[in-house]
Amino acid sequence: MAPALELLEKPVQSLRTKALPSARNEPALGLDLKLESTERHQRVMSVFRAFIADLCQQFGEGHAGSPLGMAAIGVALYKYVMRYSPGNCNYFNRDRFVLSNGHACLWQYTFMHLVGVESMTLDQLRSYHSAKLDSLCPGHPEIENEGVEVTTGPLGQGLANAVGLAMASKNLAATYNRPGHEVVDNMTWCMVGDACLQEGVGLESLSLAGHWRLNNLCVIFDNNSVTCDGTADVANTEDINMKMRATGFNVVDVYNGDTDVAGNDKPTFLNIRTVIGFGAYNAGTADVHGAALGVGEVANLKRSFGLDPNDHFHIPQDVYDFFSEIPSRGRSEEIDWQKAVARYRKEYPDLGAEFALRVAGKMVQDWSKYIPGKEQQPSAVTASRKSAGVITNALAENINSFLVGTADLTPSCNVAFNNKVDFQSPDLQTACGLDGNYSGRYIHYGIREHAMCAITNGLSAFNKGTFIPMTSTYFVFHLYAAAAVRMAALQGLQQIHIATHDSIGVGENGPTHQPIAVAALYRAMPNILYIRPCDAEEVAGAYISAIEATETPTVISLSRQGLVQYPEYSSREGAMKGGYVFAENEGGGFDVTLIGVGSEMVFAMKTREFLQAEYGIRARVLSFPCTRLFEQQSREYKLEVLKPRAEKPTVVIEAYPSNGWERYADASVAVNSFGKSLPSKDTYDYFGFAPERIAPKVKDLVEEVRRDGIGILRGDFREFNGPLRIGLSH
Amino acid sequence: MAPALELLEKPVQSLRTKALPSARNEPALGLDLKLESTERHQRVMSVFRAFIADLCQQFGEGHAGSPLGMAAIGVALYKYVMRYSPGNCNYFNRDRFVLSNGHACLWQYTFMHLVGVESMTLDQLRSYHSAKLDSLCPGHPEIENEGVEVTTGPLGQGLANAVGLAMASKNLAATYNRPGHEVVDNMTWCMVGDACLQEGVGLESLSLAGHWRLNNLCVIFDNNSVTCDGTADVANTEDINMKMRATGFNVVDVYNGDTDVAGNDKPTFLNIRTVIGFGAYNAGTADVHGAALGVGEVANLKRSFGLDPNDHFHIPQDVYDFFSEIPSRGRSEEIDWQKAVARYRKEYPDLGAEFALRVAGKMVQDWSKYIPGKEQQPSAVTASRKSAGVITNALAENINSFLVGTADLTPSCNVAFNNKVDFQSPDLQTACGLDGNYSGRYIHYGIREHAMCAITNGLSAFNKGTFIPMTSTYFVFHLYAAAAVRMAALQGLQQIHIATHDSIGVGENGPTHQPIAVAALYRAMPNILYIRPCDAEEVAGAYISAIEATETPTVISLSRQGLVQYPEYSSREGAMKGGYVFAENEGGGFDVTLIGVGSEMVFAMKTREFLQAEYGIRARVLSFPCTRLFEQQSREYKLEVLKPRAEKPTVVIEAYPSNGWERYADASVAVNSFGKSLPSKDTYDYFGFAPERIAPKVKDLVEEVRRDGIGILRGDFREFNGPLRIGLSH
Repeated sequence: MAPALELLEKPVQSLRTKALPSARNEPALGLDLKLESTERHQRVMSVFRAFIADLCQQFGEGHAGSPLGMAAIGVALYKYVMRYSPGNCNYFNRDRFVLSNGHACLWQYTFMHLVGVESMTLDQLRSYHSAKLDSLCPGHPEIENEGVEVTTGPLGQGLANAVGLAMASKNLAATYNRPGHEVVDNMTWCMVGDACLQEGVGLESLSLAGHWRLNNLCVIFDNNSVTCDGTADVANTEDINMKMRATGFNVVDVYNGDTDVAGNDKPTFLNIRTVIGFGAYNAGTADVHGAALGVGEVANLKRSFGLDPNDHFHIPQDVYDFFSEIPSRGRSEEIDWQKAVARYRKEYPDLGAEFALRVAGKMVQDWSKYIPGKEQQPSAVTASRKSAGVITNALAENINSFLVGTADLTPSCNVAFNNKVDFQSPDLQTACGLDGNYSGRYIHYGIREHAMCAITNGLSAFNKGTFIPMTSTYFVFHLYAAAAVRMAALQGLQQIHIATHDSIGVGENGPTHQPIAVAALYRAMPNILYIRPCDAEEVAGAYISAIEATETPTVISLSRQGLVQYPEYSSREGAMKGGYVFAENEGGGFDVTLIGVGSEMVFAMKTREFLQAEYGIRARVLSFPCTRLFEQQSREYKLEVLKPRAEKPTVVIEAYPSNGWERYADASVAVNSFGKSLPSKDTYDYFGFAPERIAPKVKDLVEEVRRDGIGILRGDFREFNGPLRIGLSH
Repeated sequence: MAPALELLEKPVQSLRTKALPSARNEPALGLDLKLESTERHQRVMSVFRAFIADLCQQFGEGHAGSPLGMAAIGVALYKYVMRYSPGNCNYFNRDRFVLSNGHACLWQYTFMHLVGVESMTLDQLRSYHSAKLDSLCPGHPEIENEGVEVTTGPLGQGLANAVGLAMASKNLAATYNRPGHEVVDNMTWCMVGDACLQEGVGLESLSLAGHWRLNNLCVIFDNNSVTCDGTADVANTEDINMKMRATGFNVVDVYNGDTDVAGNDKPTFLNIRTVIGFGAYNAGTADVHGAALGVGEVANLKRSFGLDPNDHFHIPQDVYDFFSEIPSRGRSEEIDWQKAVARYRKEYPDLGAEFALRVAGKMVQDWSKYIPGKEQQPSAVTASRKSAGVITNALAENINSFLVGTADLTPSCNVAFNNKVDFQSPDLQTACGLDGNYSGRYIHYGIREHAMCAITNGLSAFNKGTFIPMTSTYFVFHLYAAAAVRMAALQGLQQIHIATHDSIGVGENGPTHQPIAVAALYRAMPNILYIRPCDAEEVAGAYISAIEATETPTVISLSRQGLVQYPEYSSREGAMKGGYVFAENEGGGFDVTLIGVGSEMVFAMKTREFLQAEYGIRARVLSFPCTRLFEQQSREYKLEVLKPRAEKPTVVIEAYPSNGWERYADASVAVNSFGKSLPSKDTYDYFGFAPERIAPKVKDLVEEVRRDGIGILRGDFREFNGPLRIGLSH
């Protein structure tokens, strides 16, 4: 295999002439990007590689292989191709770079150091894989650190994020650019390894990038043919170039010198053959994937490059000099952009003001006027997916920050807003009669829930606050998307997931579509709001909470079936506290507390009536749309809501497993098995959700506590519908 | 668009000459499969379509569109191509059929009725979308029902299952067939819609089917170009045929009449253009996807087919006659197979006996001898992934029922067994020097965790008990695979998932790889065992539980880091009860109960020592590897283990969120945020897992309870590390 070294001219040429849209074909801003000599490149890459080898050796572990192989690609990108400003990594119109093969992070960290990102000191680099708290060089790139666009690591996610970042640029450009005023024209570069092209989320995202003809996206395949298990052939023998062409990419094949490139109206796939662990004895094998090379081998590598094996972590001045003009180049690019924006704002004051707000990551101040007031809420039975649709519709129709997506469930999720324009390539109008353009804010993701949410992370991460993306699908498919939503929570990315068809009320679609246990995941996941409103008023509260949670994604969990509205009981303020007293008896007396959640509130309220009418038992009802929000309240508030537990029993009623409710309740009416293929009402009946079946069990519990004291319930949680069992598929 | 009608001859021809391996090219067993006249086909399809329209109309909903379009494909498959026996749907060597677009289930149910599956009566068909409990016609096909191979519905899963079913045939054939004795030679047919080809899990699986050259798999694409959101073009404009060829499939393009087929050494992709809702006024639009047609429209459809609009649910005798020879054809195929097996068992008595055992769905009786006895367990610090590896190795090396897979983590998961042979196409030896063949039982899935688990469901479902497939990857990637593992639990499929690198002890890979919250999902999911053993002895218990759970998948959750072994305390029998008393004090006295889980047991045990030494506080320790197994125990057993909760506090120590532990504990030492990129030990320190930091908090709690009574802890769960918060990414 030819080392990537000699190929440096070709990637640079390919990247600059093939991957860039025409507007960016010429070196940006008139700067001279003439290539240095081959010898100089050789020298820079040798020093880079020796340095990587030293870094992994110091702690005896880490990922050296890919960074060694990717040296030439790095020089091409950081020296010649990417537009960025090391002195201000957050410069708005910068090119975005995503290292989707995040374990190769040393590569990125070291180039950041070389090009002059000040925080990335030699000491920081040496903190890789160390016990240093808050190192800027963690084992995978993390968004909190300067110069990192997204946290990557779980493979395939970064590639999807890159598609989102490219979409964000396209949407902003189509919305705000005017002739002669290109205030947004950045590229997105994404480095991938074999894994990202094998993972489903990567494949889904590539299909969409090709479909949308995102010519501002360049995917660079570090094709080193080696994975942890050995040769990549062991599990993959497909024709990747043919597959990428079929998916709608320009393919630039560096190893073959293929020049059959159609143009720059499509995204680019740059297939660069590299040698994993280049320069090491075991180069080209899995042995160099995730380990240090060994002391002797590091010395050999340096010797083979003509470097002194006794120099450790050594970057000579001439190598720094090679990159030394980049900070000033970046600064002048940034200044030119600021001037361009100033001219634009002068010529287009209204648009310019909105653009400035978006750049600042802010939303319009008066968004709350699009949330219906309590007096505007319906009193008739209404599905919460419909109540939510009213709000999504108003927000999205009026505020450009909202991008609304659907995984092919437009007719079911009620998120298609008035006057919506689809996000599509305008070329598809001619090609297949599709309406839409890049300023569109309604996104058809196809049947690709995982890519939808992972791409959404890129939209959110483009510049925090510039977009509040929404997604929509059935809640059960948030299991397909869970790894992506988790990455949003981990990164503190604001977004709103409209998750309809929750609970067993979805009906005839049956157990495969009834999201048993999915809520337990989202309730346990850090930094996410999972909100199950019980009626339209609580839906309003859910949206307000979601919009105010600027560092947190929200999943709003909604019913397919119609829900009884509780204008006398429900309150958005209560919902925003996560849990609150919903129905109290006169004088405050009670014998039992019932917790109603989401679409099951009706069973709590009807059971309350039944208990009173049949047995004279007084029940008080709590509404509990969001356990996470409740946990943020003061201990006093929590104990005030829950206080009856000190002496009276509490029963939770929800069509999910009881797991987690033990914190607040002593017993449950729950669904501790998979669901059932029956019409909505019959499914509830089947699982015992009926006041006349719940009430006698509550009565027995109340009587037991009266007789034997509340202490009997400690450590003896009662599941009225029986526990989760094994060996039973239903 | 041309209706599929006229194309019936072509699918039949294509399926019989292009999709079948050479051994199956000729009509099986000498039966005459000559085609009937075009008129007769027209008649059968018209009646079929009218019947489908009636079924959806009766309840005013359901999925009519795809079944109407797929009528011709059904006639081709059920009348002319598939080998099956309606009188015994479980005939071992039958072709497997998977309806991956499961919402089109009426199509399958109706053909089952027509070909003579006795349980599928007209009354059963009319129970589709009704409130009939245990209908054989639920909204998606369900494995519990006769003639259904796998439960489908979540899109893409069925396609992956089909790949697993085809692998199962290949493996059995390569293991047991001998020259002149083809005891396993069945095909797998899989019907897919647009969605299955968009979903990542489908794409991952197709890559593997192509790589493995599974020429016993035929994927039939019902290409009707319409999804819920309208034209499929709205989110997909790729060249699917080119993509499938790049992926390693023969592509047979029925609409174009393409005959450029390479041979039958690859899987086949049959791209059949159909018209969704064929015969209906809105045919070819999304309106006919998931709704009844309307009374008038059903009548029109019948009239257009020359049928009486007043006949409802009417299947005339001549249509039954068209399929009438199929039961006897199936019976004679089955009898011939039984004779063939008898001849085989005579000639190969040992192999034949093993084959008979596999056909009966049984494992060898003496499997338990491969589980090390307590006396063979290590006493030195050992990672539980290593303890598990010892057992996997012994089981897989010696018992053909075990198929062991990895998502490219052979070096990390310790599941590569002695003398393993890779599952590979023997053709790849020549093509790229890969060792292995179809009898191999070590499966390289590539970096495709979702496909790995979804394909595993096909392996498990081939014939329950014939295989006990294992998978291996990091536990965090069980979030990628969760939708597939859920389908295993829903279907009661036995399989063992080796999930290594659990907890925060994975170290430098950082927060993206630390599986916070994933355990909460698997603990809440019905019918699955999530087991976190604390040492090698509990690992042995986990394997025994997994092997004995014949209707339940198991996830064994294992550490990367070395674990202290507790030969004096741990017990496999205790582990198999899910939770048990681990360390008791002399005389049974105690002040507090500590629950240790998995790799965090060491902190429970050290805190116990610290409490005694520093404060004279007596702690008893419970081990709790599996909450689900614990819940299966008698109430008496549970209260005996937990009984101290009546008067003394209980504290759980686990490096996951506390959610769910409130059932057993009053306080937690938990990880209620995402993890941290630090070496293993430092990560634990960072999150406060250290006896000298835990013990003072436990002491305070004990003193509070002594002072104020145990009642103060009701409804006031204490999180020593603080609650899960929002607005914080770390």
